[in-house]
Amino acid sequence: MLKKLQRELKERFKIEFSQPKLLLEAFTQGNYLNEHPTFKGRDYQRLEFLGDSVMQLATADYLYRHYPNWDEGQLTELRITMVQTRSFAALARELKFNEYILLGHGEEISGARNRDSLLEDVWEAFIGALYLDQGQAKVEIFLSQQMFAKIETGFYDQFVDYKTKLQELLQKKGSVIIKYQKLSETIKQSDNKQVFKIAVEYNENVLGIGEGTSIKNAEKAAARVAYQKLTQK
Amino acid sequence: MLKKLQRELKERFKIEFSQPKLLLEAFTQGNYLNEHPTFKGRDYQRLEFLGDSVMQLATADYLYRHYPNWDEGQLTELRITMVQTRSFAALARELKFNEYILLGHGEEISGARNRDSLLEDVWEAFIGALYLDQGQAKVEIFLSQQMFAKIETGFYDQFVDYKTKLQELLQKKGSVIIKYQKLSETIKQSDNKQVFKIAVEYNENVLGIGEGTSIKNAEKAAARVAYQKLTQK
Repeated sequence: MLKKLQRELKERFKIEFSQPKLLLEAFTQGNYLNEHPTFKGRDYQRLEFLGDSVMQLATADYLYRHYPNWDEGQLTELRITMVQTRSFAALARELKFNEYILLGHGEEISGARNRDSLLEDVWEAFIGALYLDQGQAKVEIFLSQQMFAKIETGFYDQFVDYKTKLQELLQKKGSVIIKYQKLSETIKQSDNKQVFKIAVEYNENVLGIGEGTSIKNAEKAAARVAYQKLTQK
Repeated sequence: MLKKLQRELKERFKIEFSQPKLLLEAFTQGNYLNEHPTFKGRDYQRLEFLGDSVMQLATADYLYRHYPNWDEGQLTELRITMVQTRSFAALARELKFNEYILLGHGEEISGARNRDSLLEDVWEAFIGALYLDQGQAKVEIFLSQQMFAKIETGFYDQFVDYKTKLQELLQKKGSVIIKYQKLSETIKQSDNKQVFKIAVEYNENVLGIGEGTSIKNAEKAAARVAYQKLTQK
């Protein structure tokens, strides 16, 4: 089963584990061990302990360097959004990590394989294994591709309610009327998907413009642009 | 003022900052900037954001490698003890970091210079600056000397109430009577300090023996030995 993952990692990321045992450990859940007493190996929990800190530092380092004008409040806010269960679970699903987990029978029955909390654990354990096997620099390259590049595409917006945040920010100055105005609705040629362009206005000033494949997503994107502009120093 | 710190760092740790600005930033508190508008520089908060994660990873990495038989619960417990306000403040005081802080006048009056929370911030900011200037490997060398070597000497025990922890652990099996028994009381020749040796007993079995310069400290040390022996797998 892990052969497939090893092939994927090599083809997509040029990652080859010199200690495949670490990779196996990252995908081994505790109850699987109890049910397979002859299986030699550990569960992922120690690697998860390590990987959690590796993630935190790689993310903090990236944000520190890429946003030189942000204060620590803004840095912390974005980091919290990125380094959270739902985000890790989404990243793990993209790489089909759920398929590779050695899972206990009871957990399998209860649907744990696709549960966010398990996928978060395995994501962190995988990062811990990668760190031990290949070092921090390789982890940073991997995360740049899989995790940090997604900041600009708005991937993490799904985990933040920017419309509420913008509302709260503007309300500090008194009561507010925020309007979301549709600017255009087009069809992308590449995949025939609709694209909405929406402006968010406050007192008839445009605060931000966002795009999305649904009105809801375009509004969220516009709110994010406005919120980030207003909180930028 | 920082010249003295730079000299100390060079003599004691062979650390020479190639960007002394970073060192200055790590010791600059926010209100000092407000009061000195011509001062060019930032306060320590962005470095503190970064340093916090650097500390977490360096500590997790050290514990992971040095305690290969501990499970993630034991690793997490020790890390929480090490990576906490009182511990960082104690480490910062050892290096007299309090003397170097550029502090706002109001903070000075209110006694902030020796407050744990400020010292924690500056400790983390210093580690962040060291990481940016010298890299993670140098941070690990510095922390090995100043922070990790102290695990074996029981330095972090002062931040943990091992007597209560031992009591709670044993109570899980029912009511308990724990006795602390003085074994000896001697005078160290080197500095004429008293040394107490104390055994902790449970149902008349000795669970651990500890030494300390007071009865209280020797009891705590004995409780730690017993607690760690009982929770080791």
